[in-house]
Parts: sequence; structure tokens; C-alpha cells
Amino acid sequence: MIGRHKHLLGLADLSREEILEVLDLAVSMKEVLRRPIKKVPSLRGRSVVNLFFESSTRTRSSFEIAAKVLSADALNWTASASSVTKGETLIDTARNLEAMRPDVLVIRHSAGGAPRLVADHVSCAVVSAGDGAHEHPSQGLLDCFTLREKIGTLEGKIVTIVGDVTHSRVARSDLNGMTRLGATVRLCGPPTMIPPGVEALGATVHHDLREAVRGAHAVIMLRIQHERIGDPLIPGTREYSKLWGLNARKAEEWLDEGCVILHPGPINRGVELAPEVADGPRSVILDQVENGVAVRMAILYLLAGGNAEETRA
Amino acid sequence: MIGRHKHLLGLADLSREEILEVLDLAVSMKEVLRRPIKKVPSLRGRSVVNLFFESSTRTRSSFEIAAKVLSADALNWTASASSVTKGETLIDTARNLEAMRPDVLVIRHSAGGAPRLVADHVSCAVVSAGDGAHEHPSQGLLDCFTLREKIGTLEGKIVTIVGDVTHSRVARSDLNGMTRLGATVRLCGPPTMIPPGVEALGATVHHDLREAVRGAHAVIMLRIQHERIGDPLIPGTREYSKLWGLNARKAEEWLDEGCVILHPGPINRGVELAPEVADGPRSVILDQVENGVAVRMAILYLLAGGNAEETRA
Amino acid sequence: MIGRHKHLLGLADLSREEILEVLDLAVSMKEVLRRPIKKVPSLRGRSVVNLFFESSTRTRSSFEIAAKVLSADALNWTASASSVTKGETLIDTARNLEAMRPDVLVIRHSAGGAPRLVADHVSCAVVSAGDGAHEHPSQGLLDCFTLREKIGTLEGKIVTIVGDVTHSRVARSDLNGMTRLGATVRLCGPPTMIPPGVEALGATVHHDLREAVRGAHAVIMLRIQHERIGDPLIPGTREYSKLWGLNARKAEEWLDEGCVILHPGPINRGVELAPEVADGPRSVILDQVENGVAVRMAILYLLAGGNAEETRA
Repeated sequence: MIGRHKHLLGLADLSREEILEVLDLAVSMKEVLRRPIKKVPSLRGRSVVNLFFESSTRTRSSFEIAAKVLSADALNWTASASSVTKGETLIDTARNLEAMRPDVLVIRHSAGGAPRLVADHVSCAVVSAGDGAHEHPSQGLLDCFTLREKIGTLEGKIVTIVGDVTHSRVARSDLNGMTRLGATVRLCGPPTMIPPGVEALGATVHHDLREAVRGAHAVIMLRIQHERIGDPLIPGTREYSKLWGLNARKAEEWLDEGCVILHPGPINRGVELAPEVADGPRSVILDQVENGVAVRMAILYLLAGGNAEETRA
Repeated sequence: MIGRHKHLLGLADLSREEILEVLDLAVSMKEVLRRPIKKVPSLRGRSVVNLFFESSTRTRSSFEIAAKVLSADALNWTASASSVTKGETLIDTARNLEAMRPDVLVIRHSAGGAPRLVADHVSCAVVSAGDGAHEHPSQGLLDCFTLREKIGTLEGKIVTIVGDVTHSRVARSDLNGMTRLGATVRLCGPPTMIPPGVEALGATVHHDLREAVRGAHAVIMLRIQHERIGDPLIPGTREYSKLWGLNARKAEEWLDEGCVILHPGPINRGVELAPEVADGPRSVILDQVENGVAVRMAILYLLAGGNAEETRA
Repeated sequence: MIGRHKHLLGLADLSREEILEVLDLAVSMKEVLRRPIKKVPSLRGRSVVNLFFESSTRTRSSFEIAAKVLSADALNWTASASSVTKGETLIDTARNLEAMRPDVLVIRHSAGGAPRLVADHVSCAVVSAGDGAHEHPSQGLLDCFTLREKIGTLEGKIVTIVGDVTHSRVARSDLNGMTRLGATVRLCGPPTMIPPGVEALGATVHHDLREAVRGAHAVIMLRIQHERIGDPLIPGTREYSKLWGLNARKAEEWLDEGCVILHPGPINRGVELAPEVADGPRSVILDQVENGVAVRMAILYLLAGGNAEETRA
């Protein structure tokens, strides 16, 4: 359980206290992950099934490593697109998997809401590992964790998210999590990439990058989807890069000292982020990857009902 | 060893006592699987290799979970179709795998008899996880286990198997196992889907569903293969469904009280089985999935020479 | 560490003593692998990531089993070709993986030098599992191990390598390892398949098979790549087999008593090696496969900093 929640389907569902419960536990988990012997028996005999309807080696591996460090068994279930054309099939697949008695089902699906549909039909815990353009809650939590680690409390801080916010589940989870923790979130991108009405979620909208990052404590650069390049509604790569990409000069001139740069990966180097910025001193991108394992350890631990005594061992 | 047998290649090979040895052990295994901490050290240091020449996430995952609950290491070996065009290659692959010293090779292959061919050339234990239209012995055993759990002893009971019996390794294993345990097995389907001479195996043949299920204690609905729909020898989906599918009305009017419905999955909802029947009170389909893990635990335990002391731990 | 080396990128880097350190340890590892309970806690809490940019079930499984016998966690990362078009992507992938805190990255890549490029950018240990036509050091070590087991010390022995040496990373690693251990290495194949200047590495070059194997203590038959058959620069399958393949008659008439035959697998039966030779008394091909696991256990143990106390347990 995360607070009152049996599942983790989105950060919109979580209170400030519930988010902090995960983030605080993840601090201990990161300490475990950094030991030479990265293994605690907390989830021994528990099992985690990765049910991915979209391919994602990164996120799946992160959950798999998190499970194994906690001594849980991890099973990867690759779902072929052909078996998911009907809603019944998604539920059938999930209920069949559930009958094999996993403790946690981690689901990635191209349809927003798919993990919730599954959660309504199974008795084990369900985690969304990204569903459509809805949410990617473990990414939101690892971004919050990374910010707390790098810039301290989010209370009163300014975070700017840049890119295709409309199609980004990462942006949605970041926005939900960070506003809950007291940050001001600014969204920046071409007008066609910012969904209307987003101000209702507590964000401000900007179309000029320089203005959007002024005074920010952190900038989150979203990945621009290659498949969307060429779309008549959005600018070409060159223009996108020129207007909304971050290069060394802009970072130097426009960002406050201490402002950190995040990216959910994988980076399109030279499009949304110049290589020298991605690898530069402000970048906390690799910290995000490591923190992702720690945060997912905390999520699995809380949802699979880990044994606190054994984690200390 | 299962009785006198080092391998599990088909239920035709097993005596009543040997089948009961597996089923009785599976009762304890199911108890282990239902514990909050699903882990016993019985097969620690043993390894199970899944060698699948046909894709099957379900059966492979079931064996993989079974291995892990018993603390065995599980390795998945995906065989590309291109590397198996020649008989030598199958044996070469198996002997190469054997040289890595697994305790059990679990093999699925499109050719009936392939697991036996491998068993003749390796020294480790071999389990067929389905070979051509020959047998799928672990499915047969889990179906027997489920029936014993739901309707008690099979002695004197009537089991009706409905569908494309000719192409079904499940039907063949069910028939072998259930007749060995004393059940009367009726086969029902279009004439083109019932192999000639099957009465010699102890079954009766029916072409009318209503008559076939009269007085039955259990009905096993086979999956109709989509790729066979359109075959001029068999009826179309609508006609198949009308004549040999089971919907709520037929289940209500034709089946005895207490008659349970099985399906090896995945279900073609609305073809061989209506959704309300698949999810209704007679359905034991999800029990089959859970029991599949327990039965496979028993199989692996017996063939890999598990340590009985450690299973109790 | 293998001697002074944090990584294993090629046998050209290793001294005689460093090679012997691995081979001597592999003797104990093989003893572990042959126990009924194939499990020691030496690398408990360590993790090994297999990062394969070329598919290879054999080598990957061998490393995976080696890791598991030592109680390390193994993670398979299948890299799609599309994500590796640019050099930055390889390094990005590796650094992202590194951020998940593995102890050893095992890399296979179609480009020679790719593992070294990665090693220069990450802090964990890197093992080449075959890179382009450069080296396949674990194969070279397992071939050396197998020869020591079968024919004793390599000092003063003659080893003949037959086939497409130009494109063979196995040949390169064998040549480097075996000459370091004191063997005389002869290379034999069509002129277009022997790289110019190879004598500088200590080998002699032959184009006549009979002459090349005269007095040899071991013959290593390379796999002829099907994709190269039809290449105008090389002979057709029939001619290749006739001139450079080994059949029962040639083995009988041309080879010394006690001369053993190796092949890195998978064999093209009837092309470079006749079935009766591959399965005959001189063949040590399946020993190579088993020894491959033992040698990889030694490599992982040394590079991941295993606990010697625990290996004895």
C-alpha cells in the first residue's frame, strides 16, 4: 500500500504525504543499491510481472533490477500487439497472469487507462509503467526524487517542462507530482504541443523558452518523438531545435546558476538537447536513471508488502 | 523420476499410479504457491531450460514461475525457426544446451515426437510442453488436477471434449490421462475434426453437442484455431459457434448442475465459448491456470530430483 | 581484475600469466558446475548485464548460466539495431545501463572496438562477447581451457585453425591466446580468407589442408558463414567442403592419433565438418560448450570481485 492506495496508476491520485512516503523510502533503497552487495531479502518469495504492450527495455529493466535487488522474482511477459485488439483480451491476459499469483503487475500500454481497467479486474497490485498519454507515475516520482536530491525541497521552486506536453505522460506525471510538492510548474512548447486547459492543473503556459526558464530551479526537456517530426502541425527538427532545444549558449545565458537539467531519455542529441548540455555539469540525467531503480524499489516494496525487518538485513 | 520415467513426453506413457503421484504432490505445491512467501529451496542449484520452437508466453511463463518458486534457475532459449529446418539441428541445439548442464529441458515444438527425439540424445530430463498434435502432458495433468479438485475422483465420471480434436494435443493428453483415471471421455465436434479410430483409445464420438454433454460432469471446450477458419473442410465461425460453441442458454438448459467448464486458453470469446459462460460460475478456467503452476512445480520437482526435506521448509 | 586488467576486451591484451589465472580458476568453476547443486554464493548481490547488439542465444545463455551459478543477478538487454546507428547512442545506452549499477557489462557488437569504446565511458567492468572481426576473448579462453584439458600444456604444441580467418573473431582470439601459451598456430583456408600480414602475429599460413594438419595436436574448424557463400571471392559450398572441410576419411588418414577437433558452433554439418567427425571420438565440441560456462564463471568472478570464501561454500 502507498498510503491508502493498493495500486500506483497515476500521481493525480496521490496526496503530498503519499508521494513523500515513496520518496523517503527511496532514500534508503538508493543506499542499498549503492552497496557492493546489492541484495536485501525484503521481497523474497514475492513476484513481479512486467506486462509490456509497448516495448521499453529501459523502464522494464529498471523494474526488473529493482525487483531482483529486493530478492523478488521478476517475470517478463511480452505481449504481442495482435493479442490485444479487444478490451476483453487485455483483461483476459491480466487475469490469466494473476492466476499465476504474482504480487505486482507492472503494465505499460499504449492506451491511457489500461492499467486502471486491469486493476479493476485483478486482486494483485497494479503499477502503470506508462499508459498512453495519461501518466507514467514512476517517472514522475523519480523526477521528484532527483529534484529533492539536487535542489532540496520543491516547496516554492520553479520547474519548467519543455516539449510536446500534449503527448507526454511524463509531463503529466511530473506536473501532478511537483505541484503536489509545492513547486510552480511552467509548461513550454509550440502552441500545438500544449493541451488547452492545462492551467486548471496549476501550470502556467509559455511559448518562449527564454522567458519560460527565467528563474527556474530545474528544466525538464522532453523527448521529441521522431515519428511526430514531419507532422504538419509541428515544426521541423531544425526549427524545433532552434526555438525549443537547449544548447550550451542558451544554457549559459538563460539559466540561473544551480538550475539543473532533466530528461526522461533516450535523448535525441542535437534536437531537444545539445550533447554538451546533456553531458554537462547541470545535467542530472544519469542520476535520474539510478534514482529510477531506487524509486521503483520503494514502489514495489510498498505495494508487495515487503518485510521491513528484512530490508535492514 | 515420475514412477519409472525419467522424462515426461506424454500421458500415454504413464500408469494411473504415476499420474496420481504427480497430482498428489501438486496439492502440496499449490499450498506453497498460495503462501504469502512463495518460495521453497527444493530445487536450489538446479536449472530448468525452456526451449521453445513455437512461441507461447503462457506455458513458458508457467514453467518459469514453477521453477522459480522451487528456487531453480530458469533460462529461456528462444529458438528461431530458421535454425531448425533439419533434424540434426534440433539435436545439435539440445546437445549444446545439455552441455551447459541443465537438469530439465522443457521443449515445445511444432513436430510431434520432437521431445522424444531429444530425450534419446541427451542425459538430462526432458518435458514436452506441447509437440505438434501429439501431446501436451502438463496440460493434461493440470486438467486432471482441476477436475479432482472440483468434482472429486474421476472414477466413473463423464468428461466431454468439444472442438478440433484432430489437431489438439490437449485433447490427446486429456483423453489419455482421464481414461487412465477411470473417466469416460466423449469427443464432440464436426466429423472432419474427429480423427478416425479414436474409439480405440477408449473414447466415444458424438457430433451433436446436446447429446454429447448430457449427464457430463465436465466439459472441456477446445480453442478453435483462427488459422483453420476458412478451411473448406470445416464450418465458418458463425456455424461453428452455433453448432459446437457454448453460450449461456445451452449451458443453462443442457448441462447438469455441478458440471464444470474447462478451456486450455486463450479463449476465442464468442466463438467456442460465450463471454458470460467463460466468466460464469461453472467456469474453472482461471483455476486451470493457477493449477498449471502447481502441477508444473510437481513435474519439475520429480524430474529434477528435488530435496523433500527442503520443500517442507 | 584479471591481472592488471579491469576489463576483458581481447586476448591480445593479456599476458601468459593472466590467461593462466583465468584458466586455473575455471578448473574449480567446472567442478562447481558438475555438482548436483550447481550454486555458490560468490557473486550474490552482484549483477551482470548482457548487452547484445547481435543476436546470440548460445553465448548469451552461457554468460547467463555462469552468472546464475555464482548467484549473481543476470539481466538481458536486447538492443535493437535501430537505436545504434550513431556512436553516441552506444555510449548513451551503456552509460544509462551503468547508472542502474551493474558490476559487469557483457557486450556483443558488430563493430570491432565497440566494447573498448564503452569501457572508456563507464566505471563498471566490460567484457567483449564478440566484437566485429576483432576478438571473442571468452571463446579464445574456453578453447585454450579445452586444449589444456584434452592435450595438456600448449607449450610446443601445434594448433591448426581452418576456415575464414579474415572474418573470424574466434580465430583472432585463439591465435592470441594459444601463441601466448606457447603453441605454434597454423592458419589454413582459401587465400581470400587469410588476412595478409598475419604471420606477424606468430602464425604460419597454409592453403593445403593436408599439409596444414600434418602433425597437429588440435584442429579448430571455423564455421563458414552461410551469408558469405555465393560471394564471388570465395568458393561455393561444395568446393569449400571438398578443399577445406573435414570428413571421416581425411580425419582418419591425415590426422595424428590423439589430435582433437574443435568448432565454435553452430556447425554447418556437411560443409566444414562431416557429421561423423563432429560426433566422432576426436570431437571435443560439446566439451567446449560446457567449458565455456566454467571459463565465463571465472571471468565474471574475477571482474566482479567475487568473494573467495563464499565460492568454497
